[in-house]
Amino acid sequence: MLKVGDVVTVSVTITDEMVQMFSQCTGDTNPIHMSDEYASKTRFGKRIAHGMLTGGIISRVLAMNLGTGGIYLGQTLKFLKPVFINDTITVEIKVTSFRAERGIASMTTYVKNQNGELVVKGDATIMIEDNLK
Amino acid sequence: MLKVGDVVTVSVTITDEMVQMFSQCTGDTNPIHMSDEYASKTRFGKRIAHGMLTGGIISRVLAMNLGTGGIYLGQTLKFLKPVFINDTITVEIKVTSFRAERGIASMTTYVKNQNGELVVKGDATIMIEDNLK
Repeated sequence: MLKVGDVVTVSVTITDEMVQMFSQCTGDTNPIHMSDEYASKTRFGKRIAHGMLTGGIISRVLAMNLGTGGIYLGQTLKFLKPVFINDTITVEIKVTSFRAERGIASMTTYVKNQNGELVVKGDATIMIEDNLK
Repeated sequence: MLKVGDVVTVSVTITDEMVQMFSQCTGDTNPIHMSDEYASKTRFGKRIAHGMLTGGIISRVLAMNLGTGGIYLGQTLKFLKPVFINDTITVEIKVTSFRAERGIASMTTYVKNQNGELVVKGDATIMIEDNLK
């Protein structure tokens, strides 16, 4: 049973293959993500991963690693710093509230890079219930 | 130049291939998205797309169709109804504020399905600037 203070931490390396696949499935072919030449001329100096790829990895940790079997009600995301190809990001999810009578849990969702810099922060809300009828 | 009241609307059909690719690139293999047999036993009755796939399509419309060339600062998402495989979703983005002196724009990001039902709502914040140095 989920309880306030539960923490789950998962690290994932963002590969070029992941960025290519995310681009294909969403249709986001912005050259800041796809073109080394274009990206080299930007303030970032090299290609960055799509912000929502990091969002997708947060949602994967909620679904697969926190193990709530829940229904995603909401997510907020603040993109604080870029995530580059080959960065290893660590998603930390901490349960901050759980109203058992309504089955609604809230958690903070923080993402840091391999240098310990906070790259994305936000909050998730999930309805905890057994999906099976 | 972006201005308050600008609206962009883009429709996308969510294919099984998109769901499979999103699953591969994020690592989210939750059976509610991947298994017809499992999904048939849930309250939804059939497989649903990952919520963050819809999030990724919102971000694609911001990047590719609104044409801001901006930097993604934030996104909120409320998941109101499931999106099923083969649903056609329509993303509607409306600019609600633009502080030209700071280059920061806010917009509402609403997503409806082919039945006109609101499936996701939220807000985005973008810093508008030319990415090139």
